[in-house]
Amino acid sequence: MVAKRTATDGAARPGGSATHGYQHRKPGYLASKDDHLKRLRRIEGQVRGLQRLVENDTYCIDVLTQVSAATKALEAFAIGLLDEHLSHCVAEALSRGGAEADEKVREASAAIARLVRS
Amino acid sequence: MVAKRTATDGAARPGGSATHGYQHRKPGYLASKDDHLKRLRRIEGQVRGLQRLVENDTYCIDVLTQVSAATKALEAFAIGLLDEHLSHCVAEALSRGGAEADEKVREASAAIARLVRS
Amino acid sequence: MVAKRTATDGAARPGGSATHGYQHRKPGYLASKDDHLKRLRRIEGQVRGLQRLVENDTYCIDVLTQVSAATKALEAFAIGLLDEHLSHCVAEALSRGGAEADEKVREASAAIARLVRS
Amino acid sequence: MVAKRTATDGAARPGGSATHGYQHRKPGYLASKDDHLKRLRRIEGQVRGLQRLVENDTYCIDVLTQVSAATKALEAFAIGLLDEHLSHCVAEALSRGGAEADEKVREASAAIARLVRS
Repeated sequence: MVAKRTATDGAARPGGSATHGYQHRKPGYLASKDDHLKRLRRIEGQVRGLQRLVENDTYCIDVLTQVSAATKALEAFAIGLLDEHLSHCVAEALSRGGAEADEKVREASAAIARLVRS
Repeated sequence: MVAKRTATDGAARPGGSATHGYQHRKPGYLASKDDHLKRLRRIEGQVRGLQRLVENDTYCIDVLTQVSAATKALEAFAIGLLDEHLSHCVAEALSRGGAEADEKVREASAAIARLVRS
Repeated sequence: MVAKRTATDGAARPGGSATHGYQHRKPGYLASKDDHLKRLRRIEGQVRGLQRLVENDTYCIDVLTQVSAATKALEAFAIGLLDEHLSHCVAEALSRGGAEADEKVREASAAIARLVRS
Repeated sequence: MVAKRTATDGAARPGGSATHGYQHRKPGYLASKDDHLKRLRRIEGQVRGLQRLVENDTYCIDVLTQVSAATKALEAFAIGLLDEHLSHCVAEALSRGGAEADEKVREASAAIARLVRS
């Protein structure tokens, strides 16, 4: 969903400027912040679980299986975040156009490249 | 299956329509098509090089090193393509807004997810 | 380093059997257990840091950068664990040979495949 | 650089030697060489298919889908090769033990790390 942004967004930050809008104050994931936090707490639990496995001398392969699960969970979190970033922050910048739009696309592409390579 | 989209796609819908624009007839990578083709020919050469290595009974580890290089080259190609897709096709759709904009973002996110997971 | 294993390994566990050796009681990462735990606690800290970023409405791209860092750290942990698994558990099984050796290689390959794909 | 190893490598050391065995003359994938070559030719076909897609101005997302497929195929090839390397070259070296065994494990771990990161 492409988010709606109101004219009062700027007013919330005194001295704010029209050209440095929304995405500098509110991230694109605001609507699903609770879901993200829940997800991250689950991942934190997975990493703590890994510590317990190592403390208990669990067999290497079983530890590795849990590492793969935690890595996948982090990736899924990143993909969700990126999706919201595109549909809010990037969409917003593109609808305004100009140099900021180009910058937002460049920035998103760089983040995608880091994800693909990590 | 890859959908066919011909240069006459626009003509097929007499008068075309403002809401079914640009990205249905021309891909976002048009301006750098030659670079992409050059890149892909180089990757084809890498894959043929892998065949020669295997034919010549090259040591496994040396083959694997070249596989990593080819994989990285494919990823770099994908990242470049995605960047252009965002800055052209998705940007176009977002500037027009509406359901098509949402659809384009969803589609791009799904492609990113496939890349991150591949 | 490929660990040396003595004939008395079995004797250390009364009732131990020759066919269910070393790797069923002690994981390959035993010597560097403290390093692994330190590493995992640092990753846990990174994941908690991600929660703080989301709670503070940090800009999406900055969150994504930290996700990539945490993912890379998890991968590095996995690679270290796998290295020790190969040089201890798999090495041990291979030096004994037989069906267990084949099974250990199959198991390691499957773990590597999961890592490459995650 | 990929080291050259020719079919005459063996002949160069008449009678071979116990300490420089199997894996210095023949790669671990010898038994399934034809399967590997078939696989690589299929991947070459996929990369040529990508060129056709770009030449025909195929929609970006459809090109990206095929890139993900080619990347996955390369990864699957690498995983297969690595599995054979472990069960032949590394297994051989480990059964002989000594410095060469350590070196083989180190080398395999480095190749795995490159794969996981690519």
